[in-house]
Amino acid sequence: MEHNIDDIRYCEQLLNSFHNIGATEHGGVTRLGYSRQEDEMHEMFAKLGRELGCDSCQDEVGNTYVMNTEGENYYLIGSHLDSVIEGGRYDGVAGVIAGLMILKWTREDQLDLPVRVGAFRCEESSNFGCCTIGSGLITKEAYKQNIGGLRAKDGALLEDIFEARGYQLNPRKISGVRKYLELHIEQGKVLEEAGDVIGVVTTIAGPRRFILRLRGFAEHSGATPMYMRNDALCTAAEVILAIERIGCKESLHQSVATVGVVHNYPNALNVIPGEVELGVDVRGIHPESLDRIEKNIREAVKRICKARKIEYLEEKISDIPPIAMSPNVSQGLEQVAKRLKIRRRFIVSGAGHDAMSFAGTCDTGMVFIPCARGISHNSVEYAKIQHICDGARVIYEYLKEEATRLK
Amino acid sequence: MEHNIDDIRYCEQLLNSFHNIGATEHGGVTRLGYSRQEDEMHEMFAKLGRELGCDSCQDEVGNTYVMNTEGENYYLIGSHLDSVIEGGRYDGVAGVIAGLMILKWTREDQLDLPVRVGAFRCEESSNFGCCTIGSGLITKEAYKQNIGGLRAKDGALLEDIFEARGYQLNPRKISGVRKYLELHIEQGKVLEEAGDVIGVVTTIAGPRRFILRLRGFAEHSGATPMYMRNDALCTAAEVILAIERIGCKESLHQSVATVGVVHNYPNALNVIPGEVELGVDVRGIHPESLDRIEKNIREAVKRICKARKIEYLEEKISDIPPIAMSPNVSQGLEQVAKRLKIRRRFIVSGAGHDAMSFAGTCDTGMVFIPCARGISHNSVEYAKIQHICDGARVIYEYLKEEATRLK
Repeated sequence: MEHNIDDIRYCEQLLNSFHNIGATEHGGVTRLGYSRQEDEMHEMFAKLGRELGCDSCQDEVGNTYVMNTEGENYYLIGSHLDSVIEGGRYDGVAGVIAGLMILKWTREDQLDLPVRVGAFRCEESSNFGCCTIGSGLITKEAYKQNIGGLRAKDGALLEDIFEARGYQLNPRKISGVRKYLELHIEQGKVLEEAGDVIGVVTTIAGPRRFILRLRGFAEHSGATPMYMRNDALCTAAEVILAIERIGCKESLHQSVATVGVVHNYPNALNVIPGEVELGVDVRGIHPESLDRIEKNIREAVKRICKARKIEYLEEKISDIPPIAMSPNVSQGLEQVAKRLKIRRRFIVSGAGHDAMSFAGTCDTGMVFIPCARGISHNSVEYAKIQHICDGARVIYEYLKEEATRLK
Repeated sequence: MEHNIDDIRYCEQLLNSFHNIGATEHGGVTRLGYSRQEDEMHEMFAKLGRELGCDSCQDEVGNTYVMNTEGENYYLIGSHLDSVIEGGRYDGVAGVIAGLMILKWTREDQLDLPVRVGAFRCEESSNFGCCTIGSGLITKEAYKQNIGGLRAKDGALLEDIFEARGYQLNPRKISGVRKYLELHIEQGKVLEEAGDVIGVVTTIAGPRRFILRLRGFAEHSGATPMYMRNDALCTAAEVILAIERIGCKESLHQSVATVGVVHNYPNALNVIPGEVELGVDVRGIHPESLDRIEKNIREAVKRICKARKIEYLEEKISDIPPIAMSPNVSQGLEQVAKRLKIRRRFIVSGAGHDAMSFAGTCDTGMVFIPCARGISHNSVEYAKIQHICDGARVIYEYLKEEATRLK
């Protein structure tokens, strides 16, 4: 859709305000959750809020809000300002920028719409191996109850960081949220390849994650004949390919299965690998498909390890069920996009988002916009200003309808 | 054979002197080439030499010698004191200990036999991906000419390490060596399974080594459907299994093929692997079998990468031909073992040894002793004191015959 040139410029200005924070020499940004760089992002966010004439506040875990109301029953529009290591400038930031644009439009249109824009802390799992910490704590998400013992990349304990900052690991639950809405880059190629601009999220796939430890026998690679070996890496190779096959078989059901992590010991040219650790990530929106994947992976690992006389241990390190967005919100957003003549589709989110935390607390909806070639968590991540404005507009028009309905 | 109780005790004492150097909490030792731990091993070696009343010296690349002569035309008995990561306490050390025992016997028997015991630096490829650096440099082995750019596990450049220590990457060639003899644990199961105590080495299989770099595309593991992926790790898994199959097919010819090293990037649970580096080690004693393996691996990599649309780079990092020991030395050692009534056999070495470096410089021979279950490059590596003494005795009696012959 067409946008006012001032909106385009404002959007660009917002993006530029964050540009240099946490910038690295390789062109990306590193703004780990609960780091100094994330703090700078939050300070900049509050400053941008003040420039809009809005107050800001922080909650007990360090999330920052910019708002046009002190009252309850507000619409919460949010995302995050942290990044992965050497990440891009759109992941999370695009959603916070959209919130500020909506606040601006609300004021310009003199709309009686209570809005808070939230920037949630530490959405990425890159610093503590745990995602959505800021939004998870204030919505009392079950598995965020005992995370004080997690350690940051630099070794610091989360509970020590919280104590030093006066934050609470067990904060009051957030209240007064009427609906939660989030804009985010897709981090995939579905919209781009389909030529669509808006993806209305129906479900967020929750990851089931496993660590597999395979133990063979480390021996001299030159002096051990092929038929006398217990090679943990060859075993791992069979497991990796089995997991890929199992994932492909379930792709009909929009599930995926990935081995993203390999640690090979002792990892030397002259030693047959004695131990391999694999990190497995399984995602999907249909629990029965996820169950099948899990069962099939277990059977494959058992079969492969038995045939190769390899011991193994399997540890499930996370099991987050798929989380549905509110159907009425999703339908409302889709209708708005249709009315605005924006190419759109319903879409499933393979990645996790802060919206997962709010889905159990209030009506929740998410809007995806395309990112170039689907690339995210990478310094070359890129989304068009036009698309950020499109997505923000869809959420704003949806809220305008809400305001009318409430009258 | 029977040994003097003092010899058994001295051998034990020597082994114990090295025991704690580089010891790890998992029970093994890590004494990487040109590391502080290797330095400590060399200092201990010089100290043990002094206790025998012998001088010690270092050459231009840091190899240490303990000797009973300053003159030329000496017998060099050597091995190495570095280890792989989490390696055992016999690999290399047994040969240096044997040398010290021979020096002791020479003195006790007041034999007029010029002997140097050499401890060569960085025999294992675990630190720089390149083996026999210390012995290779002083014998001017061809492929050791430009290794200054190699990097240690901790990232340090070999040339910087050499400069800091005052070593020379282009040292004078060693001279005055009459014959080179080395005792080493077998690092395989042939002697143990045959019930033999001495293996007289006829040929050392030279490793051909490759680095394969596979480049796919790193994307979000949750947001990228299975059929849109360019997963470098799944490709690597196919390559690993193909290399195993190719090695098995050639095992008739006593060849082996091993993938010992994997580096996976970015190695995160939520990212599809974008790049994988594999380290491949191929060994054998028949050049035509090695050629077939090399050709078949190249074809397999090409085919697999083409099918998966993965770019790759292949780099040969070493190509050492099989190296024969001197037949007259081998026959002499075998005759001595026979005379001593020690069970023996001629044997092929799958592992590389410092003896490879000397084979082009002087008459060279090697004696293997069994190690328990053939296990080496592992914390449970074990060889019997009795067998170290047996092997040392075979070399000593061989040298005694030499001394007689020279008179």
